[in-house]
Amino acid sequence: MKIVLHKKSNIPIYQQIYIQIIQRIQSGMLAEGASLPSLRSMADDLKVSVLTVRKAYKWLEMKGFVHIQPGKGVYIKGKKHTTLQKHEPYDWQHTKAVNVLRSQYVINRHQQHYDFSRAILYPRLLPNPFLSGEMRKILDKDQMILATYGPIQGDEELRIEITKYLKEYQELSVDPDHLLITSGAQQGIDLVAQTLLKPGDTVMIESPCYGAAIDVFMNKGVHIIPIALDEQGIRSDLIDEVCQKNQPVLLYVNPTFQNPTGTVMSKQRRMELIELAELYHFFILEDDSFGEIYFDEAKLPPPLKYFDTNGHVIYLKGFSKTLAPGLRIAALAAEGPVFDWLYAVKSLMDIGSPLLTQKAIQPFLRTERMKNHLEKLRTALQIRRDTAVEILSPLTDTIHFQKPQGGFNLWISLPDSINSFALLKKANGANISFLPGTACFVHESKHDHLRISYSMLSEQDTLIGLKKLREVIYNFQNDY
Amino acid sequence: MKIVLHKKSNIPIYQQIYIQIIQRIQSGMLAEGASLPSLRSMADDLKVSVLTVRKAYKWLEMKGFVHIQPGKGVYIKGKKHTTLQKHEPYDWQHTKAVNVLRSQYVINRHQQHYDFSRAILYPRLLPNPFLSGEMRKILDKDQMILATYGPIQGDEELRIEITKYLKEYQELSVDPDHLLITSGAQQGIDLVAQTLLKPGDTVMIESPCYGAAIDVFMNKGVHIIPIALDEQGIRSDLIDEVCQKNQPVLLYVNPTFQNPTGTVMSKQRRMELIELAELYHFFILEDDSFGEIYFDEAKLPPPLKYFDTNGHVIYLKGFSKTLAPGLRIAALAAEGPVFDWLYAVKSLMDIGSPLLTQKAIQPFLRTERMKNHLEKLRTALQIRRDTAVEILSPLTDTIHFQKPQGGFNLWISLPDSINSFALLKKANGANISFLPGTACFVHESKHDHLRISYSMLSEQDTLIGLKKLREVIYNFQNDY
Repeated sequence: MKIVLHKKSNIPIYQQIYIQIIQRIQSGMLAEGASLPSLRSMADDLKVSVLTVRKAYKWLEMKGFVHIQPGKGVYIKGKKHTTLQKHEPYDWQHTKAVNVLRSQYVINRHQQHYDFSRAILYPRLLPNPFLSGEMRKILDKDQMILATYGPIQGDEELRIEITKYLKEYQELSVDPDHLLITSGAQQGIDLVAQTLLKPGDTVMIESPCYGAAIDVFMNKGVHIIPIALDEQGIRSDLIDEVCQKNQPVLLYVNPTFQNPTGTVMSKQRRMELIELAELYHFFILEDDSFGEIYFDEAKLPPPLKYFDTNGHVIYLKGFSKTLAPGLRIAALAAEGPVFDWLYAVKSLMDIGSPLLTQKAIQPFLRTERMKNHLEKLRTALQIRRDTAVEILSPLTDTIHFQKPQGGFNLWISLPDSINSFALLKKANGANISFLPGTACFVHESKHDHLRISYSMLSEQDTLIGLKKLREVIYNFQNDY
Repeated sequence: MKIVLHKKSNIPIYQQIYIQIIQRIQSGMLAEGASLPSLRSMADDLKVSVLTVRKAYKWLEMKGFVHIQPGKGVYIKGKKHTTLQKHEPYDWQHTKAVNVLRSQYVINRHQQHYDFSRAILYPRLLPNPFLSGEMRKILDKDQMILATYGPIQGDEELRIEITKYLKEYQELSVDPDHLLITSGAQQGIDLVAQTLLKPGDTVMIESPCYGAAIDVFMNKGVHIIPIALDEQGIRSDLIDEVCQKNQPVLLYVNPTFQNPTGTVMSKQRRMELIELAELYHFFILEDDSFGEIYFDEAKLPPPLKYFDTNGHVIYLKGFSKTLAPGLRIAALAAEGPVFDWLYAVKSLMDIGSPLLTQKAIQPFLRTERMKNHLEKLRTALQIRRDTAVEILSPLTDTIHFQKPQGGFNLWISLPDSINSFALLKKANGANISFLPGTACFVHESKHDHLRISYSMLSEQDTLIGLKKLREVIYNFQNDY
């Protein structure tokens, strides 16, 4: 059989072979029942590898043109009346079962001028000049810092500073040796999930919950059980019920100024969670990103970690919400064997976080600067919170929310007549965005909430943007 | 029953309860068959939650002191002759099946003065002053860079620079839109594993293989099939055999100056791997960390990615081996749906790598500096390679190695009479370390290899350290 190969063609060799064979079949040159040359003889003839010929034959079989009888030969089935389909190069990838579920929604989010959709800080509220100055000093003094890997566990001096910080601001006594630095709180969540979870495991979360944490757990293929909140925080009676039927590995909570609702878990509830963890032997991942951002001189209970005596709580403190998201620094505190496990998996994830940024925040943490900065931050955010509450209060016939005592977020319930996605579309038309509540639930059925992060914009833009949003909601209500 | 609780004690309440009940049982005050108060009445009496009491009762049952009859009551089983065991607070953690296997060995590796154990560069060979200067410039100009998250996909300008770099140094045409920046190559490997692999999946690797890649795959709970290498690289005939029985999801290869062996995969072999991937529909993760570090004007085949037309190859280029490990920058190139999947999972892992470091390397990549730097690096490493070969050659009666044509590593076979761990112990005694070959195999049975990274030290220390190592090997051989 004369087959002509163009080695420089963009069409792969196996494809050239199978296309030319199909042409012969379709033209009648190769009739039903005829056999193709053996793999070896075809390969020798064409001076290609046996693999290439096998692949061409395999494709012919997949397309229904031939029948391969192992050990005997390859026989023509006859011509087909379908036209040869266009080759779709990446289609095969869809045959793979990948670990990507909800998270795809994060891609291509369009940013609006009045953006209330992300719980991040207005950049000018952060101590950028000071931190930049520190980095410059470090680079002047020790350029070698770029040329070396830092310790996998994180810089020791930083761990000591964070230990002091946790003592001062959260009443926590942790050992620097039991702290692990991660590249932001998000990596901390992912690290815990990678270390502890396998497909089919049970994980309990708050409902609603921080969306990117749901994504992490979902992509691990675990069974997620959302637990409702009340004004005291996550409902421990429901956890007890769940544990009597399941053996959860992990409970993920955000006890102080919960994202998205702003709820503060009561002390009683915190202690109950510890008891439940001890009773049913599960880990608690305590995400404490907002603990220092309280308003109105709120009296807060200590973290869950404070009540933990048997290594049930893995405590996660992020600094992206208070210091510098661009530095990507957070710390995990854990005791017992789980600490070594986390350490080992962190080394696999990235061989440790960069050293320069870990060095740069130390002078800030060490001095009174952090204290003054946090005070300034609380004032600035309280003003924005007050603005948000004041502007949206006239709508309380329509929407409902609790005035948050800290944190970055306002969680708003919508009436049945308003779908959060339809509202978002309208809002986008006015250059406004917010987070549809759906992102905070495991099952994407709820369209009756939205989250506003009042932290992202300048005071003036917060004011203007929220007034515009109020108008959008008001008009939406009257239009439908 | 009178139980006294000390609310301020360090001993948790449930434990105080169960200890006092045990004391009553052991003293005979509570006899066999007697019943304990109901959960509710005990809770009311002690003013604690029902949960606390349940936990105490549950512990009593676990310890064998009581028998709980659901719906009826809790009955004393009688006293026990064992003494109450010391409470081991973290023991319960061992009941969890975690995803940490091999990787624990990375912890607490003791560093020696003559350290040949890691494939990293001697810090003074890196362009630290230039990169530090660039960082300072960026910080002077735009301090806000610390206050914002960068794009999840990575900085666009950096992706454009890397595209040009890949074209110039690797003949690769990739689209900046199909590049994803990761925090070092290690995160790239972990990202691909997190995206594509589930427990029970099949992954093929080279044998021997980069140890930290084995760790990543093992911790995902996959079935790893090691494929032998010959002088052409990984054996494609064995891959073909494996694929006829299994459906592998991924093949991980390091085709150019393979870590640890230094092998360069032939062009023919590279094309065969692409054909196999197309035939059996698996992904190839091509780790190209050493491609630019060639000696003796070696003529290298282009990367596997060059031959890929249907999105089978995910190409990974790390910059830690050539530019700056402290910056943690690498890039993944992939086409088709898999790119979006990787993107989505990267966002869950850390919401994107830091922006400052991504900006800092651009001016270096953009100019002739990178070209000159790579030339300097090749010369410096070739000198070290030559030193290593020259010093160890007198031992070729005992040990065997191929002279590497590039990369950082020398892979040495030991005779049966030398166990690599015993040798390492001796070497440590002389302040020398190397990597026992075991780290590069899935099954830790082989103790007949070691890897020397000649990249880590100054020229002089390389010389002194290797002479000392030669002596250690020589004496070891004669001592046993």
